[in-house]
Amino acid sequence: MEQPQPQPSAEPETEPGAGKPPLRVGLVGYAFMGAAHSQGWRTAGRVFDLPREPVLAVLCGRDGVAARTAADRHGWAAVETDWRALIARDDVDLVDICTPGDSHAEIALAALAAGKHVLCEKPLANSAAEAETMTRAAEEAYGRGQLAMVGFNYRRVPATALARRMVADGRLGTLRHVRVTYLQDWLVDPAFPLTWRLRKEHAGSGSLGDLGAHIVDLAQYLAGERLAGVSALTETFVRERPLPGGAGSGLTAMPAAGTGTVTVDDAALFTGRFASGALASFEATRYATGRKNALRIELNGERGSLSFDLERLNELWFHDATEPGAEAGFRRILVTEPDHPYMAAWWPPGHGLGYEHTFVHQARDLVHAIDEGRRPDPSFADGLQVQRVLAAVEESAEKNSVYTPVAD
Amino acid sequence: MEQPQPQPSAEPETEPGAGKPPLRVGLVGYAFMGAAHSQGWRTAGRVFDLPREPVLAVLCGRDGVAARTAADRHGWAAVETDWRALIARDDVDLVDICTPGDSHAEIALAALAAGKHVLCEKPLANSAAEAETMTRAAEEAYGRGQLAMVGFNYRRVPATALARRMVADGRLGTLRHVRVTYLQDWLVDPAFPLTWRLRKEHAGSGSLGDLGAHIVDLAQYLAGERLAGVSALTETFVRERPLPGGAGSGLTAMPAAGTGTVTVDDAALFTGRFASGALASFEATRYATGRKNALRIELNGERGSLSFDLERLNELWFHDATEPGAEAGFRRILVTEPDHPYMAAWWPPGHGLGYEHTFVHQARDLVHAIDEGRRPDPSFADGLQVQRVLAAVEESAEKNSVYTPVAD
Amino acid sequence: MEQPQPQPSAEPETEPGAGKPPLRVGLVGYAFMGAAHSQGWRTAGRVFDLPREPVLAVLCGRDGVAARTAADRHGWAAVETDWRALIARDDVDLVDICTPGDSHAEIALAALAAGKHVLCEKPLANSAAEAETMTRAAEEAYGRGQLAMVGFNYRRVPATALARRMVADGRLGTLRHVRVTYLQDWLVDPAFPLTWRLRKEHAGSGSLGDLGAHIVDLAQYLAGERLAGVSALTETFVRERPLPGGAGSGLTAMPAAGTGTVTVDDAALFTGRFASGALASFEATRYATGRKNALRIELNGERGSLSFDLERLNELWFHDATEPGAEAGFRRILVTEPDHPYMAAWWPPGHGLGYEHTFVHQARDLVHAIDEGRRPDPSFADGLQVQRVLAAVEESAEKNSVYTPVAD
Amino acid sequence: MEQPQPQPSAEPETEPGAGKPPLRVGLVGYAFMGAAHSQGWRTAGRVFDLPREPVLAVLCGRDGVAARTAADRHGWAAVETDWRALIARDDVDLVDICTPGDSHAEIALAALAAGKHVLCEKPLANSAAEAETMTRAAEEAYGRGQLAMVGFNYRRVPATALARRMVADGRLGTLRHVRVTYLQDWLVDPAFPLTWRLRKEHAGSGSLGDLGAHIVDLAQYLAGERLAGVSALTETFVRERPLPGGAGSGLTAMPAAGTGTVTVDDAALFTGRFASGALASFEATRYATGRKNALRIELNGERGSLSFDLERLNELWFHDATEPGAEAGFRRILVTEPDHPYMAAWWPPGHGLGYEHTFVHQARDLVHAIDEGRRPDPSFADGLQVQRVLAAVEESAEKNSVYTPVAD
Repeated sequence: MEQPQPQPSAEPETEPGAGKPPLRVGLVGYAFMGAAHSQGWRTAGRVFDLPREPVLAVLCGRDGVAARTAADRHGWAAVETDWRALIARDDVDLVDICTPGDSHAEIALAALAAGKHVLCEKPLANSAAEAETMTRAAEEAYGRGQLAMVGFNYRRVPATALARRMVADGRLGTLRHVRVTYLQDWLVDPAFPLTWRLRKEHAGSGSLGDLGAHIVDLAQYLAGERLAGVSALTETFVRERPLPGGAGSGLTAMPAAGTGTVTVDDAALFTGRFASGALASFEATRYATGRKNALRIELNGERGSLSFDLERLNELWFHDATEPGAEAGFRRILVTEPDHPYMAAWWPPGHGLGYEHTFVHQARDLVHAIDEGRRPDPSFADGLQVQRVLAAVEESAEKNSVYTPVAD
Repeated sequence: MEQPQPQPSAEPETEPGAGKPPLRVGLVGYAFMGAAHSQGWRTAGRVFDLPREPVLAVLCGRDGVAARTAADRHGWAAVETDWRALIARDDVDLVDICTPGDSHAEIALAALAAGKHVLCEKPLANSAAEAETMTRAAEEAYGRGQLAMVGFNYRRVPATALARRMVADGRLGTLRHVRVTYLQDWLVDPAFPLTWRLRKEHAGSGSLGDLGAHIVDLAQYLAGERLAGVSALTETFVRERPLPGGAGSGLTAMPAAGTGTVTVDDAALFTGRFASGALASFEATRYATGRKNALRIELNGERGSLSFDLERLNELWFHDATEPGAEAGFRRILVTEPDHPYMAAWWPPGHGLGYEHTFVHQARDLVHAIDEGRRPDPSFADGLQVQRVLAAVEESAEKNSVYTPVAD
Repeated sequence: MEQPQPQPSAEPETEPGAGKPPLRVGLVGYAFMGAAHSQGWRTAGRVFDLPREPVLAVLCGRDGVAARTAADRHGWAAVETDWRALIARDDVDLVDICTPGDSHAEIALAALAAGKHVLCEKPLANSAAEAETMTRAAEEAYGRGQLAMVGFNYRRVPATALARRMVADGRLGTLRHVRVTYLQDWLVDPAFPLTWRLRKEHAGSGSLGDLGAHIVDLAQYLAGERLAGVSALTETFVRERPLPGGAGSGLTAMPAAGTGTVTVDDAALFTGRFASGALASFEATRYATGRKNALRIELNGERGSLSFDLERLNELWFHDATEPGAEAGFRRILVTEPDHPYMAAWWPPGHGLGYEHTFVHQARDLVHAIDEGRRPDPSFADGLQVQRVLAAVEESAEKNSVYTPVAD
Repeated sequence: MEQPQPQPSAEPETEPGAGKPPLRVGLVGYAFMGAAHSQGWRTAGRVFDLPREPVLAVLCGRDGVAARTAADRHGWAAVETDWRALIARDDVDLVDICTPGDSHAEIALAALAAGKHVLCEKPLANSAAEAETMTRAAEEAYGRGQLAMVGFNYRRVPATALARRMVADGRLGTLRHVRVTYLQDWLVDPAFPLTWRLRKEHAGSGSLGDLGAHIVDLAQYLAGERLAGVSALTETFVRERPLPGGAGSGLTAMPAAGTGTVTVDDAALFTGRFASGALASFEATRYATGRKNALRIELNGERGSLSFDLERLNELWFHDATEPGAEAGFRRILVTEPDHPYMAAWWPPGHGLGYEHTFVHQARDLVHAIDEGRRPDPSFADGLQVQRVLAAVEESAEKNSVYTPVAD
């Protein structure tokens, strides 16, 4: 076979996504969530065919040197050390808030006021009151064409999205039970230091806001209905912990020595009733030794059941009660087929995704919502409603576990 | 090789267990539990080396023909149609009560008064008051050398017995969480008929007494401590059900047509606190579509965790948190080794047991306790304490889920 | 409620199964298999409604004292110390052979000649030649009304019986693959002693005859077709082992000190082709560290797949490829429903069985076959055919793994 | 708290990875593998701290329009339509070959001759002869400072990398067994079209080169030793398939209508011996209905066992046989801890990775190797040795499965 000679390339060099209108993102915070969101924004346009091209424009962190390092690592073009400066920039279309919960409201309100779209990590705020203000502002901003989304990323696991689709299709029939746990174990060791996540003034609450917010949202999302009331127990097992040796991560500094008091819950257990009469049970804890990220949810309905475990996130288990009894059983659906949510853009069947892909999907869905001008899902109103459930949980826990309705 | 000629056997024929003092059992009730207990009594002496030989002496059922058929099937020598007649017999050493809960107290008290040992199915009684009377009677009878045991057979699964041993050995350290579910699904179909288990006057309660009693006992047994208080929700999803076409099974007749009202709970959810401060969550339901017998329990402690599922009863999962992090993980202990509880008498490693073996082990343990004159475990006092937890659950459920202490 | 007075029982005492014609069993050997068969014969009539009542008539063992102890433990009425004496007895209808393979042929031929039914443990014999003689004798005896069955008990697990039913119903379509392993680990420790199972003159072969016979039978039974040829590797990893300290168990004495040579295979791997063109792979080993009794089989067909693991014997996994792709997956059928094989006679759904139940089912099926005069399944001819597969495996292993047809 | 005013950012905008020497990649092929490699190159520098910054410089595909679209999607700056042109460019440091196997040799040899580093997808070539030439060229190029790596990406799953570390640390002791399957099912439907992967002239072989190459490499890598010989069966179940409707994907066009002949194997089964005497079994198939990507490997050694399944790639199962028997069991190590391979750069414990992360890790490892000038692992020599195993498999399959030594 004759070897053809190399020819000069006929194609000029281009930027990825060139030709599409950009969506310039400004990210506030660069710790765990900031890294995950960076991965989401960087990857979404490379995997999905998006109407707008996300651009990692500006990263904001209080420590300029650390922020610059993070920006280089995660791929952000510019750096700000004050979130107000970031919001003031003309070259930012969307503000992505990955800070601890105590600053969500202030940043989100300012960003909306400045005409930006907003993506805000969960929990939406540290109190229902703040969340209400944010939701009102989001509603007004929507009238001006701005979108505001709250980051319940676990709706974007292909398996949970498939579960939602199956529930909506009536595959479960009348719902009877939803049971959810979110089990972690990073506080089992009493020597683990007192980070910002263990202080009420920063985190708002402990396992409840961090893990409980996720499972309340996911349970309601999958059930397709809301909790009417709850009965709760919370507990702080270890009340004094060593202070971190140096500065805390991200936006929050902590003192340098001695011990300090844990002011949030270590674990929260609650039961509840859905509007339809279905029963629910919830457990959020950081003391489930050996369970690293066990968000497990099961829904039982008259026609079938679904079960999911975040530690095996490519699988959805489905029991179809309409099958003949001799052949019925929970089946492991490997959620990697082209007709599963999000999966046509990824790999062939059987090639699974990981945790961070939820953020790629979140970015994808938000870009589409912005392009189409429709309300993002979940909205700030959804975040507020979750906040109200958490408030009812806290109220019940304070009132001797008495059943406490969720405010409308 | 020269063929030796057959020789007359030097051994006379004998009965199994010949030479050992017999323990003559009278069984009241021959439905599901009666069949399971029969299997236990018949097998215990064939597998374990017992100090006394259980004899299946008399079976009692109200319908003489049906009782005779059952006796032939399950291997009982004689039949009675009145439990009082059974108790009056001289050739019965132990009365085994497998009737619905509404008759437990009356039969057990009469049997104790007649000088018999007693094994009583759980729940001990349909009310804490009855259980108290029974416990007092058992205590007095113990002074006369009679033993009384309650049938929490799930303590006798080799895996749960191993779990208890490991907890007692300190393998879990300070306990933080116990979470238990007992999930069945036989009521999902609204056309399932109104059996005696769905009527309060016979069953006392629904999933709570049937399934909840098991998991309360197992949780406390494995934890090695008692619940201090509970907060509960109960629900009856389907309130009217068709009446069974004919007579009910066992001792209880039901009307023949139309529909009737379910007067017990279909599901019971409760959270609680152990005396030590550990948290617990419980769910008992007959509406968990696709879950057939999912008694699942997990204990999390500072040094480790244990997890068990009755649907895979030969396995105990153990996480040893003292292992180096890079090698730690929940391990599946196949509880079939000779140094596992009960297993030296059974098969080689990897050859698992089934559900009914719990009754073989129960018979074995009770025979040993009788022979040694020591209190059986669990005693009627243990059954009473479980009853008090169930009473607190019912009280909490009636009082808007308020946290309700368990009576001492 | 008025208390009725105890009445004298109207029912005379009876023996279990009274009124049915007995089937008097004589058991040769009382080690592991003898104990398991005892459990089977004792239980079958108590759980299933059998046309004839099995009677544990005579146990035979060479050491009279030990045999008497075993008979008392396992419930046999009489004892013999010479199997010829057992066969010569008029009060034995069926001879159950649980000795090592080197004595199967001699005992079975004598029993058939004496007019007895025969149940013979697998492998049928230590050579295909012996098995042929036995098969001819069984065929002749069948003409005289005697039945002869080989003890491939793993056909009697409800899950494997269900699998067979589903394959026969066409649920898998054209078969492509069968892969089977039988993994144990009791030889991993080089200090494990040289028992009779490790000597060719007693056991015939090692993992091949012990484990390989099971999986060859099960694979062919489930596939519904026979292996046409095989290619094999065998290995003995540890060639010298300590001699057992004392006498061997059962019928076989071993010398008392020093070391001896292992003369059988430790592991056997082979691939093969079914008559239909489907491919098969087999592995039998006693060196799979941590695997205790992992008989695992999977069948892949054009329309579906089935998967089974003996360590979780109450489960059958089924993939239905005719389901829509988005909902397809391997489903765990908990084989405890009343319409599953054998299960109507046992417990409610979700209450699993154990290893020994296969022997109860084997006894049940053999009693029915005897009553109806139909050939038992598996017959000696089936055992012979398995023997021929094993012979082809050995021949291939000796001939550098060359593909070796299975003799017809 | 006083609100500081927004300040102009002190930081100029920069490119990610700015300041590091670039590693400019030219990718040939943009189908499945091209997309996966793109993801790897794009992400590696954003997650890991690399000594050189990978730059997605040029993508090459024969169809200029399609290549441009792919380049935009996957993020490549420039496009070439002739791989010779790509190799001729000065602004390409490394050529990444993701084409079908029939073009690997030609491209790799040209790239090495042009002074480029090379990453070549597996299998290294379609014949051992080609692979030898490539290996020699790679060796010579290494003398000139060029590196050549073959893309056995499954070595880069954190769980398999951990397994390798544990084997190297002696945690398994003397190895006895390695059993591996790679099960897919995309050919079960006879209507699936005849793609290039089913034609020998393009793909070299079928399941053997595609799946078998992966498992041979992984087995040898984890065992830390090489196969001495093999015995094999291969099969093509469906010999005629419909031709694809249009042009094939990537570099290969296929005719447009009718049916064509499958000229590669659908399934390959082989057994083998390692140099140490350990036994191995392999199965590669595209007909394992319901198994989507089930690369499963288990290693059994005298001191322990390891087990892995690619469908659950964040888990490694370990049985430590030095544990006391009563507590031993296979444990699920969730390979997401900071001291697991690659994981310190990713997410907190319990937050799993997906399939494509293997390509991120491959890029990372290759960049480090290039920076340090050390031979990449796996080298072309490793790829050649795998090729020799596959050649021995083919030879054995042709010679009636006779045991065939692997060439040195």
